[in-house]
Order: sequence, then structure tokens, then C-alpha cells
Amino acid sequence: MTDGPDFTIADVVDVAREGLIEPPGADQAVHDGTGRVNLAFTVITGPDSPPTQRSVRVPPGVTVFDSASWNGIAIDSTCGGHGTCHKCRVQIAGEGVPITRHDVRTFSPEQLDDGWRLACLVNATRDLAVQVPPLTTRPKAATVGVGRQVILHPAIQKRYVELDEPTLADQRTDLVRLTDAITDLELTADLHVLRRLPTVLRAADFKVTAVIVDEDLIDVEPGDTTSTRYAIAFDLGTTTVVATLLDVGTGTPVAVASMLNKQQPFGGDVISRISATMMDKDTLGRLQEAAGATLAELASDVCREGGVDPAQVYEVAIAGNATMTALALGIDPEPIGVAPFVMATSQPPSVLATDLGLSLHPRARAVFFPALGAYVGGDIVAGMLATGMDRDKRTRLFIDVGTNCEIVLSDGDTILSTAAPAGPAFEGGAIRCGMRAADGAIEVIKVDPAAEPGTDPVILGVIGDVEPRGLCGSGLVDAVAELVRVGLLDDSGRFISEEAAKEIAPAIADRLTKLGEERVFLLHRPTPHADPAECVYLSQRDVRELQFAKAAISTGWTLLLEQLGLEHRDIQQVLLAGSFGSYLSPASAVRIGLVPRLPVLRIVAAGNVAGEGAKMALLSLRERTGATALLEEVAYVELSDRPDFNDKFVEQLAFGG
Amino acid sequence: MTDGPDFTIADVVDVAREGLIEPPGADQAVHDGTGRVNLAFTVITGPDSPPTQRSVRVPPGVTVFDSASWNGIAIDSTCGGHGTCHKCRVQIAGEGVPITRHDVRTFSPEQLDDGWRLACLVNATRDLAVQVPPLTTRPKAATVGVGRQVILHPAIQKRYVELDEPTLADQRTDLVRLTDAITDLELTADLHVLRRLPTVLRAADFKVTAVIVDEDLIDVEPGDTTSTRYAIAFDLGTTTVVATLLDVGTGTPVAVASMLNKQQPFGGDVISRISATMMDKDTLGRLQEAAGATLAELASDVCREGGVDPAQVYEVAIAGNATMTALALGIDPEPIGVAPFVMATSQPPSVLATDLGLSLHPRARAVFFPALGAYVGGDIVAGMLATGMDRDKRTRLFIDVGTNCEIVLSDGDTILSTAAPAGPAFEGGAIRCGMRAADGAIEVIKVDPAAEPGTDPVILGVIGDVEPRGLCGSGLVDAVAELVRVGLLDDSGRFISEEAAKEIAPAIADRLTKLGEERVFLLHRPTPHADPAECVYLSQRDVRELQFAKAAISTGWTLLLEQLGLEHRDIQQVLLAGSFGSYLSPASAVRIGLVPRLPVLRIVAAGNVAGEGAKMALLSLRERTGATALLEEVAYVELSDRPDFNDKFVEQLAFGG
Repeated sequence: MTDGPDFTIADVVDVAREGLIEPPGADQAVHDGTGRVNLAFTVITGPDSPPTQRSVRVPPGVTVFDSASWNGIAIDSTCGGHGTCHKCRVQIAGEGVPITRHDVRTFSPEQLDDGWRLACLVNATRDLAVQVPPLTTRPKAATVGVGRQVILHPAIQKRYVELDEPTLADQRTDLVRLTDAITDLELTADLHVLRRLPTVLRAADFKVTAVIVDEDLIDVEPGDTTSTRYAIAFDLGTTTVVATLLDVGTGTPVAVASMLNKQQPFGGDVISRISATMMDKDTLGRLQEAAGATLAELASDVCREGGVDPAQVYEVAIAGNATMTALALGIDPEPIGVAPFVMATSQPPSVLATDLGLSLHPRARAVFFPALGAYVGGDIVAGMLATGMDRDKRTRLFIDVGTNCEIVLSDGDTILSTAAPAGPAFEGGAIRCGMRAADGAIEVIKVDPAAEPGTDPVILGVIGDVEPRGLCGSGLVDAVAELVRVGLLDDSGRFISEEAAKEIAPAIADRLTKLGEERVFLLHRPTPHADPAECVYLSQRDVRELQFAKAAISTGWTLLLEQLGLEHRDIQQVLLAGSFGSYLSPASAVRIGLVPRLPVLRIVAAGNVAGEGAKMALLSLRERTGATALLEEVAYVELSDRPDFNDKFVEQLAFGG
Repeated sequence: MTDGPDFTIADVVDVAREGLIEPPGADQAVHDGTGRVNLAFTVITGPDSPPTQRSVRVPPGVTVFDSASWNGIAIDSTCGGHGTCHKCRVQIAGEGVPITRHDVRTFSPEQLDDGWRLACLVNATRDLAVQVPPLTTRPKAATVGVGRQVILHPAIQKRYVELDEPTLADQRTDLVRLTDAITDLELTADLHVLRRLPTVLRAADFKVTAVIVDEDLIDVEPGDTTSTRYAIAFDLGTTTVVATLLDVGTGTPVAVASMLNKQQPFGGDVISRISATMMDKDTLGRLQEAAGATLAELASDVCREGGVDPAQVYEVAIAGNATMTALALGIDPEPIGVAPFVMATSQPPSVLATDLGLSLHPRARAVFFPALGAYVGGDIVAGMLATGMDRDKRTRLFIDVGTNCEIVLSDGDTILSTAAPAGPAFEGGAIRCGMRAADGAIEVIKVDPAAEPGTDPVILGVIGDVEPRGLCGSGLVDAVAELVRVGLLDDSGRFISEEAAKEIAPAIADRLTKLGEERVFLLHRPTPHADPAECVYLSQRDVRELQFAKAAISTGWTLLLEQLGLEHRDIQQVLLAGSFGSYLSPASAVRIGLVPRLPVLRIVAAGNVAGEGAKMALLSLRERTGATALLEEVAYVELSDRPDFNDKFVEQLAFGG
């Protein structure tokens, strides 16, 4: 790709990282009054190193422990912030910090007077200065998402224990014997593990590894198996599904695989799949099976590739839009598909992976991301988590371009989200020569009417470096943007006359021709004088399709900006999410008005943020809680309810302006 | 039956009821210092009726709400004591009762000063005087167990709601729309109900009944179905299984059925069934299936008999001993069967009834009673609940006679339990003419050596009024007791010589004869001079078997009495539990020393207390919590660990004394 995004993921990481930490003294006054509190952490690393200063901003009410964890500051803890391990000791300056019964058990009266508290029990309701003592355990952290530093606190925990054998004087039950040895967690055991417990304990001479997910004891394994704990993160897309096998003990991805969603035969987008369920009552079951089969095949692929026993995969996290989530769970999506667009629930229950058709550990859990609305689903919530939309004080616009386009706008305090019905243009649908981004698709286009004679004035980037077969979404955007730039398309989206074309761009004017009654611009000619029908071309109707799509999207973010009283220029960063976003040229996106007219430096591709969010949820229970918190923090704006939507839409149809 | 227990259940009810209420001024000083607190309730029923005074004693720390509920005093509540409905308002005299945040939300500062509090949030840690205002709702109560008045607070709740239909301005999810209408409960929904929710809501025009078990929303039903909610209580015995179908809305039993446990072919007692699992690894699965098939057939029977759709049965409660519970759940019972006798868990997890093989509501739950020890199981915990062993200030001895005999002793403060290995004598096992209590079994025996000539000096009560075929447990006890009484058996348990018999009881001396080398007493002769082998008789070895059985039991309660520093005469009531206990003659039980030597008025049959306890758990969440609390309150004494057991056992072998 010769002309991809101007920024790599690595650049984004650095930019986003800065955003996570409040520069001392920088415009705090603006934000402090409007719903965030400031926590100044002094982190003591050891007797020989100077303490580190870190200042973070969080919504009021977040615990000190979470505030630290969310921002990559490590505080001792083994229970994950449940108030049971009594390890997350910090010293808080000033008076008036409430004392809980756990604090009384943990600290001496003198220590309490000195401000010592358990960090997981202090809610930050005002600015605080917090001193963090050196770690007694060594937590590991991983960098995930867009520069998110995640401290490893996976839901999956393993504990190796060597238990005393029972005697007549010690008839504790097998379960109590085990849980007595794991004092920092309050474990519950289901029938599956109780069935295995007596046999495994005795076969292993009472030396076993407890497998714990959250606070559920899901298994006991003979001997010490603490080094093997795996999970799978799924990005369950309407078109493509991606699986990442993670070693949650180290945060390392072990294997990645992707494939087309096996639901494709039922329709390319969510609406056609919902329609399919409405026409035949058996289709819901078949779509559910297809989703399960897709996840199962990918799970099997990544385990094989990673050399991991599927029985050592104890949890999966799935980020999908509301329809994909409903279909995977076998919940009727019809009310999502018709006005007023209502989900059965925004927070799907956790289920067993085996209930979805996955052959992993028999008690492996599958957790789905919650959804903000019928068209701002779990994939977007995962994306917000991965991009830290709620942890960054900058004004940022997040756009996931697709048939349904999700838009999130944050001014550092308020976060709004909406969905815009862009239609299938970006997936290559409804475009004469449109195709998905596969081999043979033109994905990059540069037009240079002043090219040296003998040099091709239309330069094409083609996926797979093969003979061009069609035009994918990013190529479509490039084509229109370039033709607007050189003037062959006017601002209203109409091809100029052939005469005018010869005048302003003689080198390419011969490519502007007709196919039947419709005007087309030939992008690729297999032979210099090939019939237009044999060429890859852009038609007048294609341009109209793209205009409608981009107008829907720009109407969305325009209305969100208005709602927060912001102008284009206030936006400090535009994140283009999803695989389409990663391939789109920021300059072309600006040119056609798909994104606000901003310096291209501010427009960055964020990659597969849904998958990254799913990984974060598996690596950190804190982050998972953060995803649920987004449901409270982010407002959902329903565009179809807006009386001014149509007027705005018409305003946004033109290019330029 | 001409000579059954001297007391009926109804008598017991009255006796036990009195025990629940502290007589004013009666020996309070003795008990108040040793672990109970006294709550004096003044119940105001209305403006025209005088208030009722009730004084109850509970373990310290029990909430005021529970203390009232356990003792049949109704306080308004719809949430079942979770602090969410804010209805259980009471006025507490004196100062120093803590104020919770829920109290602050519920009462004015003046009311708080006047002692108003939510009863479910006040722990009774000292004596309190509590005024209960008139009810604004009308709770129903049922009398269950041994005189236990249970206020109906079943886990199963139904709520009929009429919801607003969604609009673009109100896109709440289906689940939130429903739960918003049920504000006093914090409901969770599983996948099953989420799959039904969208369809049922729309098909029923958003007028539905929520089916709730505890705080789990398990279903939504179209229209108003609040009047139909059922549950089944199971007494899962080693020999016999009893099912009671309950209308939990009224507390009424709708149908009862019983049958032999289908596990019988694998052995008559728990040890033989455990042995069966140890000899063939497939046997555990077959025993599990047999248990499930027994429960399923009974469930089907009671539903048919009661005319109730099985899909309207939303919960079952199962009281069984530790082995029956483990087998029903498919948990390997081997560690229960061999020293040191260890259970996998004392608190089995709640499972779906369908997982046990029952075809009821697909999300109906099955809850098992917790166990105190490997041989004091859930059936005994249920029995303690039904007899109020922990709510009664009297010194009471509870004995469930069987192959394994469970014994519980309470002095009104401390409760001890143990298990005595009585062996199969009481089930008719190891007895020459022994049989189960079925048609043809001699169950009552009266011997009158001074009977008028022409009158039979041995009067038999036979089950089914048919020709006697054998001797069941109560007949065995009667036979031995009567022969000891008339002197044909001496105190050591030996038949006296035929010469001596002719002297002291000439009318029956001819029945004392020999069969082979063994001396026998002929109980029933089909013809006057029938061969002894054709008769129903009691052999010398039968007497030895009974001696061993009764010595095991009396050693058990003797050691418990010693541990509490009590004498026989301190015992105010002996409860004989189980079907065997109901048929046993108290006088005979005293005569052979199976129970302490007490006036027979103090010895009462308590009936199927395990089944009654299961009913209570279904009718009242409070009572269910009470069952779990017993695990903390009751100490388990392991007899096989006692160095003095054998000495005591030998002392107890003799009759009389």
C-alpha cells in the first residue's frame, strides 16, 4: 500500500498515552468543574529510587484502586478490589476519608490517623493526593488497544495448594478444605467441580490447582498447572470474525485467526439477517448455529496454531454489535430491526462457551460486551474501552465506518454516541464495480493529470498486487476524492462535461465516457481501448451512493458536535475504527467530508479496536467493569427521532464547502 | 393399629407451640445469660383491638424481622428482608439502635428519634422491646412441621405488570422495561428468559406475569398468571421417597405421593450403595439416574393427581441424607463411606430440576438441604427445621431411628448432633423373620401371660390385617420389650430356661422352643402345632441384633447428654422422627432403653419431619435461611473418634438398669 494512513498504530499509542495523564497545571480549571476529579499519585518504587508522580482524572465515585489500575499504576491486590485480600494499602493526604470495617481490621489506629486506607474501598469524590507504597508482589502489565497499559488482573486465576489430608479429627468437606487454603477469595463452586473434587483431590494426594474465573471455582486440576491459563478474544463482526488466543498470565497473544462469518449466506448486513429471521421462524436457530460454528472453528484454529489444549481455555470475551450478539445467543433480533429499535437487554448474561457450541474447558465462560443501543453495540463499547474514550480529556471523535456507522464524540467530560445508516457503499455494495476488500480490489487511487507523458496519470493500489477486478470502500473514497480534487466531479457530485474535462485535465479526459445512458470514469482498462463494460469504473450513480453514505455519517457527527456546542476545529483527534478505517486515506476522507475538515495529522486509524477491547476485558477485571460503566457514562442519541435530521442530511450531501 | 404412639401430631403441635413462646417470667435468668436474646413484641392489629404481647428468644445477631417471622409474627415486607422494599417498619424502645442509610431514606428525623427502624436491618444483639404496626398488606401463614407457623414468603414470586410499549423516545430494553416495573426486587435474568422476552412481551401486548425465584427472573408468561405457582417438596429417603406438591401462594399441599427409591436394587442402605459405586465405576451414573427417575415419577404423579401443569412448578426442595444427596447429584460418595467420612460439600449448589431428570418448568430450581456431617445429613437438618430444634428453649432429644441413626440434643442454647451406626435391625435386616413395614409385617405386639383361657396371650397388630409374614422394626422392638417385661428375656438379653418359663408364664411357655440349635420364641403359629420353621418367631440372635442396635443409639445420646452435663430426667421432650419413629411404641422404646427412661408422655412421634422441613423451605425464604444457619449453630460430634465409645457401648447393651 503506497498511500495508507499517515499514522501507524505506534504513533497513536504515543499520542493516546499522553492523553491519559494530566499534564500538571494544564487547563485543569476548565475540566475540573465539570464532572471529573483529579488524583495525584506518588508511587514509591523502592528505597533507592525517587518516587514517581502521576496525576490522573477520573469520573467522581471511582475507587482509588480503579483510578490507579485504569491508568497503569500498580497497587498490590490479589482479590481484584473486592475488599477481601486487604493488600491494596495506600496513604491518603488530608482528613475526612471514611474508615471502613476492613480498614479497622487492616490498620492500627495510628496508621488510620496517618491516612492509611485500602484503596479499593475509597471512592474518589474529590481531588486526592495518594501515596502508593512499593509493591510486595510483582504485577505484570500489558499494552493493549490504543496505547492502553493494562495491569494484569484476569478473571481467570489459578492457585496451587497442598492440602492436609482429612482425619477423623478434621472432617472438613473437600470444598471447605480447598477454600480454607485460598483465603483472599470468596469462592463458589458449581456442580461440575463438586463432581470432580473428591476424585481429583485423592488421586493427586491433595496437591491440586484451583481454577477460578472471577470468584467461581470452575475446576481443580491435579498438581501445579498455574502456568497454563488461556482465553480467547473474539471480534464477532457481521462480515469478518477475528479470534485472538491470549495467555492471560503474561498478557501475550499466542495466535490469531480470522474468517468470514458463516452467517454470510443469510445476508451481508444486519438488516438482511434480521429480515431473514422474520421470514422463516427456523432461521434464528440456523443463524445461531452459524455464529457458533464460526466461533468454534476459529477457537479450534487458534488453539491448534498456538499449540494449546482447548481444555486450558477458561474464558472467552465476545465483542459484537447488538444484532450479532442477539443472534449468537439465540435471542430474536426482530425488535432491533424495526422501529423503535429495542434490544432484549443491553447487558447479555454470561453463558457457558459450550452453550455457544465451543469445545473449550467445559465450564469456560463466554462474556459478551454490553451495548449502548440497538445500533451502538458491544463492538463499539469494546472500541471505546480500547481507545480510552472515557479516560482522555481531549475532544475526540470515534467513527466506525460500515453499513451501519457508529459515531462517538467526547469532549473529555460528556460522551455522546449515535448510529448513522450509511448503507452498503463502503462494503462495495450498490456500487457497479464494488467488491469487498479482497484480492483484486482497488484500495488506493492517485490521479495526476500533469503526469509526465508515458507515465500513467491514474495510479492504482490493488490488494494482492493482481489484475484489478473491482473497487473496495477505501478505493471508492479515494476515487471520488481524487476526481473532486482534479475537478472532474463538481461539488454537487456531478461529472463535468467531456468538453470541460478536456480543458482542465486532458491527460485523463478520455476516461470520462458513457456506459449505456450513464456517465462513468474508467479507473482500470485491461487494454488501452477496451469496451467500458470490460473496465473497472466509477459511475455517476456510484458517486451518488457514496454521497448518501457520507452525508449520513457527517450528519451524525455534525449533530453530536452541535449537541456539545463544539466546532470542527475543537476536535483534537478523529479515530477511524475497524478494518475499513485502517485502510481509508485520511486525506480522502477529509476531501469528501466523511470526517470533519481537519489537518490529517489529527485523523488516525485505530485498528481492530473491538478485538483489542475484548482482549482488555480478558486481561483485566477492572477494564471489564469499565466497559459496563460506559453504559452509564455514554448517552445514546437516536437520530431517527430528530426532526432536523433530513435538513442536515441534505446540507451534507455536497462535497467541499 | 390398636396400640400406636400415645400422642398424635396434633398434640405435639400444641406442646411445641407453647415452647416457641417464652412464658413471662419463667426461668429467663437461666437462659438469658447463655447465648439467646429476648425480643418482646407488641403487635398492634388495629384501632379497635387491644395489642398482642409476644416474647420470643433467638440467637444473638438474628434480625428483628427474622425473629418475628420465625415465630409467626407478621411484619409487612415484599422483598423478603433484603432492605429494598422499605416496608418492614417497627418501633424499637430505648436508644442505641443503629440507623442505616435505608432507615434515613424511609423515616423522618423525628421518626428515627422515636425508634422507628426497618426490622430487617436491625440485628438483635441484646434484649429489645419492639412495637409492630398494623399490617398494610395481608400476609398468609401456614402451619407446617411440628407446630411451626410459617409466614408465606416463598422464593417463588409472580408479578403481573402492564408495561408501556416502546417508542423512539423510550427505547429502554425489554429487560429494563420489565424490571423498572418491579422496583422492590433486584432481578437478574438468564439467557432462557431473554430468549422468550421479546416474543412474549409483544405477543401479550406488554401485559405479562414475571416469574421470579429468589431474585432470578426465570420466565415471563403472557397475561396474569399470578394465581398459579407451585413447588414440590421431596423427602428423598434411602428406602422411601415422598413428594408433596404445594401451592406456595396459599401454603396448601395439593397432592402427596410416595414410592420406593429406585436405587433399592443396588442395596438397602447407604453403605451398600456406596460399596456398589466402589466396585463398578459405572454404578454412580446408574444410581444418579435411578434417583432422578424416582423423583421424576413422583413429580409426574403429584402433578397429575393435583391437576397441575408441570410447567407451573418452579422450584423443588429435596431433603435427603448426605449419601442420597451426593448420589442424586452424581457426586462420588466413596469418601463418605470410608473413614474419615468426608463430604465433597456440606452445602450442595442449587441446580436446575431438569438436570436431575425432572420435567417441570425448564428453569425450575432444585435446592438441596445442607448437611451437618457425613451421617447427619440434609434430612436431619430439614427435621430440625420442622421441629424447631433451634427455636425452642426446652431440653429436647431428637432421634431418627434407622440403619444410620441420627441424634440431636438441644438444651435450649447449645445443640449437638451425632450419628450412631444402628445397623439394619430396625429395617428388618439381619433379623430371621425380619421384613420391611409392608403388608403382613407384625408391627405391634402385646403379651399377656395372665390372659383368660381361650384368649390368645400374644396379641399381634399386622399391617394390612392379613396373615402375618414377618416382623418389622416396631414389632421387633415390641416383641423384645414385652418378653423382657414378662421375664422370658433376662436383662442381659438371654432367653430364660424352658423350666423357668413354665414357672413364671405357663400360658406362653410352649412358644419358647428351639429351631435347630437356636432358641426362639414363636410369635405367630399358622396352626397350633406348626413346625417352628413355618412360624414367625423371634430368635436369640435377633435379640442380640436389637441389643447392638439400641446400644449404639443409647450410647450416642448418653455421650451427648454427658457433653452438655445433663441427666436423663432433664430431657423435656423426645422426638422420634421418620416413619419408623411414628410407629414405634414409646413404652417399648423406653423398656428396651432405645430412648432415655422417661415418662412416655415426653416421648412423641414427630412424623415425616424431613418432608415437612422441605415444605417449609419452599414456603419461606426465611426458614430456608434458618436451615443454613443450623450449620453454624449445631455442633457435629464424631462418635467413631471417641476413645470411650466402646466402654459406653458395652454398658448400654443390657436391658433395664
